[in-house]
Amino acid sequence: DDEKDGGEAESDNVLFGFKTCSVLSDSSREKNIFIHGKLADQDAVVIMEKTPIREDVLAEIFSDSSLKLEMRNDIYSTYRLQAPSHLNEIKTTVVCPATEKHVKKYQRQESFLVEETGKDYQSITLPYIQEQCFSVQWVYNILEKKAEAERIIYEDQDPKVGFVLLPDFKWDQKQIDDLYLIAIVHQRDIRSVRDLTSEHIALLQNIFQKGKDAILQRYNLPASQLRVYLHYQPSYYHLHVHFTKLSYQAPGCGVERAHLLADVIQNLQSDSDYYKNRTLYFPLRKDDGLLSKFKEAGRL
Amino acid sequence: DDEKDGGEAESDNVLFGFKTCSVLSDSSREKNIFIHGKLADQDAVVIMEKTPIREDVLAEIFSDSSLKLEMRNDIYSTYRLQAPSHLNEIKTTVVCPATEKHVKKYQRQESFLVEETGKDYQSITLPYIQEQCFSVQWVYNILEKKAEAERIIYEDQDPKVGFVLLPDFKWDQKQIDDLYLIAIVHQRDIRSVRDLTSEHIALLQNIFQKGKDAILQRYNLPASQLRVYLHYQPSYYHLHVHFTKLSYQAPGCGVERAHLLADVIQNLQSDSDYYKNRTLYFPLRKDDGLLSKFKEAGRL
Repeated sequence: DDEKDGGEAESDNVLFGFKTCSVLSDSSREKNIFIHGKLADQDAVVIMEKTPIREDVLAEIFSDSSLKLEMRNDIYSTYRLQAPSHLNEIKTTVVCPATEKHVKKYQRQESFLVEETGKDYQSITLPYIQEQCFSVQWVYNILEKKAEAERIIYEDQDPKVGFVLLPDFKWDQKQIDDLYLIAIVHQRDIRSVRDLTSEHIALLQNIFQKGKDAILQRYNLPASQLRVYLHYQPSYYHLHVHFTKLSYQAPGCGVERAHLLADVIQNLQSDSDYYKNRTLYFPLRKDDGLLSKFKEAGRL
Repeated sequence: DDEKDGGEAESDNVLFGFKTCSVLSDSSREKNIFIHGKLADQDAVVIMEKTPIREDVLAEIFSDSSLKLEMRNDIYSTYRLQAPSHLNEIKTTVVCPATEKHVKKYQRQESFLVEETGKDYQSITLPYIQEQCFSVQWVYNILEKKAEAERIIYEDQDPKVGFVLLPDFKWDQKQIDDLYLIAIVHQRDIRSVRDLTSEHIALLQNIFQKGKDAILQRYNLPASQLRVYLHYQPSYYHLHVHFTKLSYQAPGCGVERAHLLADVIQNLQSDSDYYKNRTLYFPLRKDDGLLSKFKEAGRL
């Protein structure tokens, strides 16, 4: 009977009976919240995020809202603005039934800053990477054009200094504001910055120069608008370089995890063993297996 | 006549006659917008930002909102949720009359990554800093307890390795989530990392250790939850160190501007002149006077 009221599938309010168990995480900066709860006895995760303020509805908001004065001081005044609800929606995602894995995924995790000496790398981190045998088959698929071939922006096929440049999954390529590309090297034996020595300088310089050139050609974005860096720890142990737009505060571009490619090159030029011997700092999430290894070794 | 309707100063809708000239900037991530326009022939800037989603009104939102189904796929479904407007307010600030300076302040500015060799510092940056005579009187007021004395969290009074630790202006101290403190050194002749040599290692180690201890004592936050770093370029040329919560993506913590204090110490230990000779990279806004100097010198 309800169906005749709306042409499209207007839903009943499925959240009417939702019972909150706990807030998994939230961000007052991004105006979102992740909630674990129950929908009719089933576990559910509800994700809410306020929508961006759109220029095309500003005039309507100004004319149709009510304003509550909060504070006035000289030329400054602040208000609580109450807009018509159809001009101020909240994007809502419901996962139901949700598994324990879903709940865990959205749970806020504390991170801990780990101090890894060159010796710690040899005795803790390297054995951990080796025993985990993290698969990088998906990387090989890209390098061999067995997957994502149509996404490749640029390639240098040289086996020694060559690489493939393609958009990161996080970038939808719809606007240049949040440009995010990854350069994946053809060499298969470089796990991370820890493996780099002066013999890799030519490879790194090649990626730096040709990556910047390709981005200028394709997106008309000059090098001075780019942040080019590596992660340590990386999320997979096959050397890759991140290219993001400088004005975009990309996830993972913080000083605690990112290393500017230009700095890496300089450091290797002045000391071939810089990344073998240097103490490196990086954050690890509470549930990261590597963190447990550092704890077991009494290094945290 | 309107006044009798509400006990407090409920305002008329001052934005009813607002005419938008241009959007100065906006952030779809932070759900805010900065607008330049006219209010009854006067220049005005209007700043709107959606409010965080609060846990204490979730139950009301779930029961009193309407939901429009957007997509359903397996266990996932997405909706546009329209909440009662008093549960979904927009924080609005009006600056009126606004000067050209206000308009410029909120205008989005492109940044450019500058490459500064040790020589560039001597020939471009240092003369610029000197001729500008940026006042740091407000810093001296803090060090001399002429201002903000009650805000000081910790002090080491030693003239050589001492410092004052206090909350950054950006932190309202209401929650520890976005903890942000600044350590300001008592020595007055260190402008930035460029002035640091191995003779400053004791000072830096003292700030690192005692700063971490003070934050543990006062906020019960261990060092593994902290990001401790310097800026280059700094916003004022009197040496200071930033302490922010690791899980808080603080403005200015990106790899293009921040330098981990632990790395700075290591670098000085291996080479006293590291920061004298090293090429450093940093972003400058389009309207920054220093950027013009780099352009004039043909370095951009």
